[in-house]
Amino acid sequence: MFPRPFENHLPRRVIFGRGSSGNLANTLTQKDLRRAFVVSDEGVKGAGLVQAFTAPLEAAGLLAGVFTDVAPEPPIDTVDRVAAQIVAAKADTVIALGGGSVMDTAKVASLVAHHGKPAREFVGIGKAGGRGIPTVLIPTTAGTGSEATFVSILTDPESGNKIGVVDPNILADIAIVDPALTDGLPAAVTAAAGMDALVHAIEAYIAKVATPLARGLALEAVKYIGRSLEVVCREPGNRAARDGMAIGSHLAGMAFANSSCCAVHALALPLGGQFHIPHGVITGCFAGEMMRHNAPNCGTAFAELSVALGWGLMQPTDFAARLDTVAKAIGLSARLAQTPVSDEAIATMARDAVAIRRLMDPNPRDVTEADAARMYRAVLA
Amino acid sequence: MFPRPFENHLPRRVIFGRGSSGNLANTLTQKDLRRAFVVSDEGVKGAGLVQAFTAPLEAAGLLAGVFTDVAPEPPIDTVDRVAAQIVAAKADTVIALGGGSVMDTAKVASLVAHHGKPAREFVGIGKAGGRGIPTVLIPTTAGTGSEATFVSILTDPESGNKIGVVDPNILADIAIVDPALTDGLPAAVTAAAGMDALVHAIEAYIAKVATPLARGLALEAVKYIGRSLEVVCREPGNRAARDGMAIGSHLAGMAFANSSCCAVHALALPLGGQFHIPHGVITGCFAGEMMRHNAPNCGTAFAELSVALGWGLMQPTDFAARLDTVAKAIGLSARLAQTPVSDEAIATMARDAVAIRRLMDPNPRDVTEADAARMYRAVLA
Ligand SMILES: [Fe+2]
Ligand SMILES: [Fe+2]
Repeated sequence: MFPRPFENHLPRRVIFGRGSSGNLANTLTQKDLRRAFVVSDEGVKGAGLVQAFTAPLEAAGLLAGVFTDVAPEPPIDTVDRVAAQIVAAKADTVIALGGGSVMDTAKVASLVAHHGKPAREFVGIGKAGGRGIPTVLIPTTAGTGSEATFVSILTDPESGNKIGVVDPNILADIAIVDPALTDGLPAAVTAAAGMDALVHAIEAYIAKVATPLARGLALEAVKYIGRSLEVVCREPGNRAARDGMAIGSHLAGMAFANSSCCAVHALALPLGGQFHIPHGVITGCFAGEMMRHNAPNCGTAFAELSVALGWGLMQPTDFAARLDTVAKAIGLSARLAQTPVSDEAIATMARDAVAIRRLMDPNPRDVTEADAARMYRAVLA
Repeated sequence: MFPRPFENHLPRRVIFGRGSSGNLANTLTQKDLRRAFVVSDEGVKGAGLVQAFTAPLEAAGLLAGVFTDVAPEPPIDTVDRVAAQIVAAKADTVIALGGGSVMDTAKVASLVAHHGKPAREFVGIGKAGGRGIPTVLIPTTAGTGSEATFVSILTDPESGNKIGVVDPNILADIAIVDPALTDGLPAAVTAAAGMDALVHAIEAYIAKVATPLARGLALEAVKYIGRSLEVVCREPGNRAARDGMAIGSHLAGMAFANSSCCAVHALALPLGGQFHIPHGVITGCFAGEMMRHNAPNCGTAFAELSVALGWGLMQPTDFAARLDTVAKAIGLSARLAQTPVSDEAIATMARDAVAIRRLMDPNPRDVTEADAARMYRAVLA
């Protein structure tokens, strides 16, 4: 019942609200920030959102530069390229406008630009050595929660492996969560990102290292996600559901940043790395199977979660089954089924997944290599 | 169900754990802070806690100065005196070691010392104009949650009125919540501060302006407080209960900082100001009466709170009655009964309380002057 020692790390300021990102120029000048460098990607640009931010910044004389070339699963080299442009532009603020890839790139680029060391030197835990250039993180999807975390997941372009920068110094100076930016998201992105947010909240709640703050926020997160996820997938124009997913995914981000993701994410990493399936499709499809595995140790937690989700009081295995039902209902299972995976690949991935102790150790029930292989087969078959 | 626009402001780093304050020198040098100025009061000094912190800081060559003269309901002049000493000592960090009075004094002294303007110029909302000298807030009671808030309540020595400095810039750089510091607290302080923390959580949860983050943290807070408050009052040496109150009061502080206190606190201010009754004695004794008044609008919230408190699912009026029972059980009602209050005083206080719109407006049910007078009579009779 009573918590072990812990630390909580939080973004100092979060602005939430439909339309709240429209005040960006004011928000910057209030903090005496005058040279904003905007980081984004081609998808966000194509949706017209980059222009919507850079035009008013430029009109106010606050725009120092723009980079819209962040790729999905961003290679670490991109961070150095962005940082070089930030320095060349003499920017005093980094604005990230995008999903997890964009925010993760901007968070580390802020360090690189400030400290003048290549991005690789920040890989690992606690390597920042102080804060970077001030950052404003503005998510355009509802899922990763990256605007609330101090983790950045990048890709080693040589090996294809995921590498992480984990340091409280990369927490956003300001996070602006504006659900209106997600209104135009394609259904496929909405579903995958949204289910990933649900998995973040669940894993943050059940992790052995969950802090009280994380548990409180995770439970509040699923109250919003439970009432919004299936609705927003059926009715992409439902603004209340967009709002609910935006706040739910943000709270879930703050929760797992102060707890941990667990075994679902461990299984997701090798599969995502090798087959380039969207992260949320994978976490969404494996959630049910893993929670069935976790069920013997999670009776109370699953009951609390299912009530908060609006699903009513559930037995642990029914809770797991319900997660499968949701993954099916919002189309994630069908998407995963499109990728054939060989038995050999499963054996390798099972070994790799179990080796990710950072994610496996906090899981409430031990996952052996045989367990992992069985779950890969069950879900991918 | 879905939130209106809001902002959340949070301390960037919270360290929690029994014994966690013992690493203070390390925590400072990691941030390259070398000249610490310790603010405290005579009570904390008398308990030996000031010495316990200054000795290791001095041994490490990190102690720039000490001020232990903060009075309860601290006059705003004290802030200027502390700030002058901070400047004279060329300190680069302000360490607050104490309860709400000490932390509230230190939070504003950090601004005064940095910006070189008298404390009065910071009175009001959003007057800081930037952060002050870095602060480390270390509570020695479990109640006010001041280490998690951006409010400082001071006293105007001429009028005796309470005045507030409210600005996210006074949020702690680091909050260190070490339950061991509360182990030796007298029973009377434990009870009053602890019940105040419970009221913070309840009012933060039911306030009209509650943000999702605040609701999640308030509900988590009462899970700890509900299982710890009466236990720690019966068994002051129960460490698990001390831990529970420390984490509960801290989460409640973060909650009401991102929501609001409500009408219980409005009634408490005039009564505390005039009769010098400890704040937590008042809020604790008025909680039941006010929640009886709020009951028609708080059915769901009280049910959620009572379940989280471990009291089981309750009708709203039973929830209110249970608060009265707790206030009696831990001796608060008997303490309030020692102060006779005249009918004229009640009339004046009712008028004054209703005028505190900052606290009355967020209350879930309107409180008229007649309501306030009736509640004062009911509780003080
Ligand atoms: Fe994820
Ligand atoms: Fe209070």
